[in-house]
Amino acid sequence: MNADYGASTELEGPLQQRRALYQPRLPPCLQGATVRVEYGDATTTIDPAGAPEVARAFPRTYGQPLVNFLAAAADKAAGERPPIRVGVVFSGRQSPGGHNLVWGLHDALKAHNPHCALYGFIGGTEGLFANKTLEITNDVLASYKNQGGFDLLGRSIDQIRTSKQLSAAMTTCTNLNLDGLVIVGGVTSNSDAAQLAETLVQNNCKTKVVGVPVSLNGDLKNQFVETTVGFDTVCKVNSQLISNVCLDAISAGKYYYFVRLMGRKASHVAFECALQSHPNMLIMGEEVALSKLTLMEIINKICDGVVARAELGKYHGVLLIPEGLIQSIPEMYALIQEISILHNNNVPVAEMSSQLSPWAAALFQFLPPFIRRELLLHQESDNSAQLSQIDTEQLLAHLVETEMTKRTKEGRYKGRKFSSVCHFFGYQARGSLPSNFDCDYAYALGHISLHIIAAGLTGYMATVANLKDSVDKWRCAAAPLTAMMSVKRHLRGPGAIPVGKPAIHPSPIDLKGKAYELLREKASSFLLDDFYRTPGGIQYEGPGSDAKPITLTIEDQDYIGDIEILKQYLDKVKVIVKPGCSRDILKAAISSMVSVTDVLTVMSHPLNCEMPLFHFN
Amino acid sequence: MNADYGASTELEGPLQQRRALYQPRLPPCLQGATVRVEYGDATTTIDPAGAPEVARAFPRTYGQPLVNFLAAAADKAAGERPPIRVGVVFSGRQSPGGHNLVWGLHDALKAHNPHCALYGFIGGTEGLFANKTLEITNDVLASYKNQGGFDLLGRSIDQIRTSKQLSAAMTTCTNLNLDGLVIVGGVTSNSDAAQLAETLVQNNCKTKVVGVPVSLNGDLKNQFVETTVGFDTVCKVNSQLISNVCLDAISAGKYYYFVRLMGRKASHVAFECALQSHPNMLIMGEEVALSKLTLMEIINKICDGVVARAELGKYHGVLLIPEGLIQSIPEMYALIQEISILHNNNVPVAEMSSQLSPWAAALFQFLPPFIRRELLLHQESDNSAQLSQIDTEQLLAHLVETEMTKRTKEGRYKGRKFSSVCHFFGYQARGSLPSNFDCDYAYALGHISLHIIAAGLTGYMATVANLKDSVDKWRCAAAPLTAMMSVKRHLRGPGAIPVGKPAIHPSPIDLKGKAYELLREKASSFLLDDFYRTPGGIQYEGPGSDAKPITLTIEDQDYIGDIEILKQYLDKVKVIVKPGCSRDILKAAISSMVSVTDVLTVMSHPLNCEMPLFHFN
Repeated sequence: MNADYGASTELEGPLQQRRALYQPRLPPCLQGATVRVEYGDATTTIDPAGAPEVARAFPRTYGQPLVNFLAAAADKAAGERPPIRVGVVFSGRQSPGGHNLVWGLHDALKAHNPHCALYGFIGGTEGLFANKTLEITNDVLASYKNQGGFDLLGRSIDQIRTSKQLSAAMTTCTNLNLDGLVIVGGVTSNSDAAQLAETLVQNNCKTKVVGVPVSLNGDLKNQFVETTVGFDTVCKVNSQLISNVCLDAISAGKYYYFVRLMGRKASHVAFECALQSHPNMLIMGEEVALSKLTLMEIINKICDGVVARAELGKYHGVLLIPEGLIQSIPEMYALIQEISILHNNNVPVAEMSSQLSPWAAALFQFLPPFIRRELLLHQESDNSAQLSQIDTEQLLAHLVETEMTKRTKEGRYKGRKFSSVCHFFGYQARGSLPSNFDCDYAYALGHISLHIIAAGLTGYMATVANLKDSVDKWRCAAAPLTAMMSVKRHLRGPGAIPVGKPAIHPSPIDLKGKAYELLREKASSFLLDDFYRTPGGIQYEGPGSDAKPITLTIEDQDYIGDIEILKQYLDKVKVIVKPGCSRDILKAAISSMVSVTDVLTVMSHPLNCEMPLFHFN
Repeated sequence: MNADYGASTELEGPLQQRRALYQPRLPPCLQGATVRVEYGDATTTIDPAGAPEVARAFPRTYGQPLVNFLAAAADKAAGERPPIRVGVVFSGRQSPGGHNLVWGLHDALKAHNPHCALYGFIGGTEGLFANKTLEITNDVLASYKNQGGFDLLGRSIDQIRTSKQLSAAMTTCTNLNLDGLVIVGGVTSNSDAAQLAETLVQNNCKTKVVGVPVSLNGDLKNQFVETTVGFDTVCKVNSQLISNVCLDAISAGKYYYFVRLMGRKASHVAFECALQSHPNMLIMGEEVALSKLTLMEIINKICDGVVARAELGKYHGVLLIPEGLIQSIPEMYALIQEISILHNNNVPVAEMSSQLSPWAAALFQFLPPFIRRELLLHQESDNSAQLSQIDTEQLLAHLVETEMTKRTKEGRYKGRKFSSVCHFFGYQARGSLPSNFDCDYAYALGHISLHIIAAGLTGYMATVANLKDSVDKWRCAAAPLTAMMSVKRHLRGPGAIPVGKPAIHPSPIDLKGKAYELLREKASSFLLDDFYRTPGGIQYEGPGSDAKPITLTIEDQDYIGDIEILKQYLDKVKVIVKPGCSRDILKAAISSMVSVTDVLTVMSHPLNCEMPLFHFN
């Protein structure tokens, strides 16, 4: 465990020092020490068909209501609010803005009652199990405000899943007499948070568990969560680098750059970066999964692009590849699943290739040695393949080069030799100084986490809606973690293991959404016209310093606002059709309501409802 | 050749659009349409021992005076200045700010006389040989002002060296009736510019040749040139990424990041980035060459650092490696030289390993296969190895891991397993939006280039001194390219080929300089204390937007200013000791002058003079 976590460090760079002075903005409802808590209707899950299973798995925390936080009319004196004790733990990949979450939580706690205490667990979930804490104070926070990284506390294995882990976490909560525990992370960590919340309730432990959506991947996205903390910063840094590479490519006119982007299974990072930097091609995992494109079909598509560009005299280009792509290619997915089953059965790595099915073995042998080695690596904390360690961009570049050579020999391509340069952007982005947006968003979520605990709620996620608007229009809420869950019912790999455990799954790109439509419209211009866009580095002051992700500003996402609007309409109907109204009005109302309910019933049928694309794992 | 060079593109990003509006600042002497030209003394070369050879190779352009440009008292009307025709060509790696050089040249030309014409050669030196031009106008420039890349004109093979190439260039100059040709590039391109200037003079071609120091490497650095255009931007972007990686490393506490930096033979980029981001280690080529460290000695040094950090409970770290390091390691240098000779003798790549000397072959076999393959790659335009294609960071990470495993087995290391992640930063930095400093510097050099041509000078480089001060204190000058030349007299590789051609060589880091001293002082703190510094991305407005490279601001570099000061002293002596002064004063003057000249004579002896470190190739 690193001895330096939480060390007060001297901020050396002038920009770094200036950033430490930035005061994140708060939405109006969070500006007082308390909030008015408004309870909504009981929730179901985003996947109605899975609701019974979720209810079974989470008997004590399923079906809790949505909660809105509004500005309190007047605060009581701090002395009248009992002091509370809260713990906070980083879980999962470091993401810019994580420190501001802790800062926001700290400030909200101290406003609640100066005698409140905040404990940070050192070294992630390992620190939680071992009860290694650092008391978070203003002094400790001083050199971490608005700074990147997770080095205030560090992170580790990022799992609270086994009964041993759950019980270790419970013991720590009890020993520290915690009123609340805030778990900072992405889809996996928040699924774990839901499990821990349920376990604590069942065991009569008073600690309330709150999840916070902090993840560079941007894949924790649903009715309640518009984006995750860190996604904006990471996409901006990546887009800066991609646009630099685009200009480099067009200047020299001789290389194709294959750029793989960190972001796990879903393609949100690659998608947002494509909108920001306009590369020539983007191979999205969701499209590949939907069209069931095979590896060679993808290669041929890329080669067709290379040929089309060569006909315009262009021998350079930039391709974006999400790190999750490899899992979306059907035959690669099947191979990875077989390997995953062998891992679960503790088959030694050296014997794996001999235990594959004949066709998986044949595909495995076809792949270049470096990819074979990478596919066999140990798994991630969520038992998925270590996507960041599989050089998909090199695999594609290698196969494209082979195919271009073949086309040249067969006389189907007469242009210059194809040359590529490969990149993986991820590590160099996720430690960045967070953008103003991520600083504000995380700081607000920190406050909301405290209000969730103070309201005695558990198994909730802190959320902010209407993010695309200015901070004074943000809506703050808490959504039950179980409402974000779905159950995978498809068979997983040739081993035919049914997967039935409810979890929060990464959301794929919405291929029916406005942002995707925009990208599709411009795809051919991107491919051929070198319509590169230069977003530049993140600006912290002056014009552009409040820019937000393009996908966030395009999509209309205010779910909680929409629920509000629906409620207003229902109320209006009640007012118009109150006892005493004419029979005609009543009849018209009934016939309209029949029609509405019929349409909604059909639309809510599992086959039509909006749910994660199951093509896409 | 790319059809899109010089295309008017729509600037899409808001920052990009805003940057297009930035008006670079000009030093006072360049603010009028003309300048006052002040001729200094005749120049020698930086390496006195090589002067006779340089004089022989450049009979018509050696020994020209230094030239200063001062503000003109009053401009004549533009009509009285004959219109002139100038060509400009990008040569060498793209470097942020290149476009502003063209813009500055254009504006200065049009101020000189609106009927002047500026031609850009499309596709670098290939365009020069083939006379493919684009007339540079305000409209053409509109979407390239303050933008990165070289995509206004593109680049290609970057060589003007063979007599065929020289004569093709001369034909183009004659056909276009050019008064001047501006060559934009680094050490190699400026050596070629000197050769072309000499050739044109010898052939009575009227075209004046001007070199401009534009190179991300920062290795074109001498008495006259304080830094190159693009170095500042590239170091800032790289430092941003390195500091992100540092925060990432300390947050997770489990990886060592081996980061290789583009920058050719010398370590300027890595050195500046280390000063900006404070990584744990920096392996400088110049230090390795000076201490003649072998590969295994370097590995052991790194492993000792890893062990020392493990004793503090730290299992992460960040190492910077200049791409030129591999050539500075004695045995690797020898191997690369042998391969280079085989290349020159047209030995096929497949046969190379069998034609190496026995010990070079043994080293070659010891290296991992990926490095072997990379070492055999084709050479760069200056006949050196393709350093950007040799994954030195992976070689070092691989060997460190092997050594750490060995130490573990032998019980000399008891810490956690060593894990590494490798990066190569270069392509993603050199296409960046240029910093304000690079925008201003390049724009000023564009103006100076015009004044050199207008003054009828050839074989000169446009230079600005006193860069560390604000723009209004910059001194503008022209220095003969031959004055920057030296002659390598050491034997090159076991083939014993004497190398005697004068050229401008990359300058190594000055290991006696103040900046290096600063780094040395902090080295042990860097290694152990995780004293990371976060420079952040380049800011274009507000505080920090005028930051300059740290090495530039630390070193006292105003050579031309110092020559001025010396001249003033000599003049003072003349004034005091004028005929009529007392005998005692005359005697005192003589004895002082004897002492001064004795000291200077000793210091100017080749063994003591300041010249490129010959340890370092």
